[in-house]
Amino acid sequence: MHHDHTESHLKSSEMLTDIVIGMADGLTVPFALAAGLSGAVSSSNIIVIAGIAEICAGSIAMGLGGYLAGKTEQDHYASEIKREYLEIESLPQREIEETKEFFANIGLSPALQVQATEEISRDKNRWVNFMMKYELGLEKPDPKRATKSALNIGLSYIAGGIIPLSPYFFISDSKEALVISVGATLICLFIFGYFKSRITGVNPLMGALRVMLIGAAAAAAAFGVAKLFVA
Amino acid sequence: MHHDHTESHLKSSEMLTDIVIGMADGLTVPFALAAGLSGAVSSSNIIVIAGIAEICAGSIAMGLGGYLAGKTEQDHYASEIKREYLEIESLPQREIEETKEFFANIGLSPALQVQATEEISRDKNRWVNFMMKYELGLEKPDPKRATKSALNIGLSYIAGGIIPLSPYFFISDSKEALVISVGATLICLFIFGYFKSRITGVNPLMGALRVMLIGAAAAAAAFGVAKLFVA
Repeated sequence: MHHDHTESHLKSSEMLTDIVIGMADGLTVPFALAAGLSGAVSSSNIIVIAGIAEICAGSIAMGLGGYLAGKTEQDHYASEIKREYLEIESLPQREIEETKEFFANIGLSPALQVQATEEISRDKNRWVNFMMKYELGLEKPDPKRATKSALNIGLSYIAGGIIPLSPYFFISDSKEALVISVGATLICLFIFGYFKSRITGVNPLMGALRVMLIGAAAAAAAFGVAKLFVA
Repeated sequence: MHHDHTESHLKSSEMLTDIVIGMADGLTVPFALAAGLSGAVSSSNIIVIAGIAEICAGSIAMGLGGYLAGKTEQDHYASEIKREYLEIESLPQREIEETKEFFANIGLSPALQVQATEEISRDKNRWVNFMMKYELGLEKPDPKRATKSALNIGLSYIAGGIIPLSPYFFISDSKEALVISVGATLICLFIFGYFKSRITGVNPLMGALRVMLIGAAAAAAAFGVAKLFVA
């Protein structure tokens, strides 16, 4: 059961992490931008254009950022595994010491440290994989992860960003639209925060409040600063 | 030396990761937003206000987002460690099987699996720490990390965002300002991408090009979409 928990946790977490990353910023940044501009301009028109430009910019920047992060992880893994194979060839004694050190650190007796190291270093591939995972803490990345990550983050950002922006499409007075936008977005941030907290194992109500307050703070600050610059 | 590499890698990486997160989005999103608005409005004035609102909103949202991520990591660690202590008390046999499984997976012989598990399970605290780190892959988070993370990400976002926006402060025609903004930001994205790639061990020139192209793509898309909505 515990093992199942870990497995399912790992499987679902990559996609959910991407959705959470995209939606958290999508709900917050376009929301705060629209609120900020509402403090500075009275027509919703310019806010809609700025909002769309932001959602477009943000989703591409974050989506491609996620792609880049995935690719970097792959490159990093590939370069470290090459190095680990090289070190096993050129400095086997040092690698043996490092492996023993690992077993010493987790609390095995000197006798078992030597035996375990001896067994593990018999198979080079297994030894390298062990060093990658437990000495360097690197997991072999999924090669499709970068592309999936880009799509999940980008689309979640768009989905999140449309919510705070939509009132400005229908209400031409920016201050009136702002009221609906604030109400709708805070509710969505609360719901989003609730589910996000449940996934990460945090108290859901506290987590939901935290996420909502962050959005509110960002919007209030943007509103205040934009008003300052106009006055 | 290898060990030093790992250590220094871990030490510097948290702060650098935060700076990279903040600056990557700070350079890209305000840049693309300003570019997008330049396709829609001819006066730099509204772009400056929107840009400042965006930098304000983005830095707070991302900074507080980093804070939240740090806090969530702490809460998650605290709840998992409690559960692990509980499981050792209530289902010790299952935990012993899981520990043996770990040693089987890294390639130890059945005899050593039993001995290593026996030694490790003698000290409860050590056993729990071992399960946390190697079964669940969770590191004990630094309690100050959340606050530091928020500041590093937020300030890096502001530092990054000021670069693409600054030409609009001084040049009243948005199309003219855009040209300077594109030039300055692409150079900065290239330099930023170069250093980011060196840190993560990726080919620096390739990495720099990738980062620059992402920024350019986001800006071009925002410009195009905003123009579509105005026409």
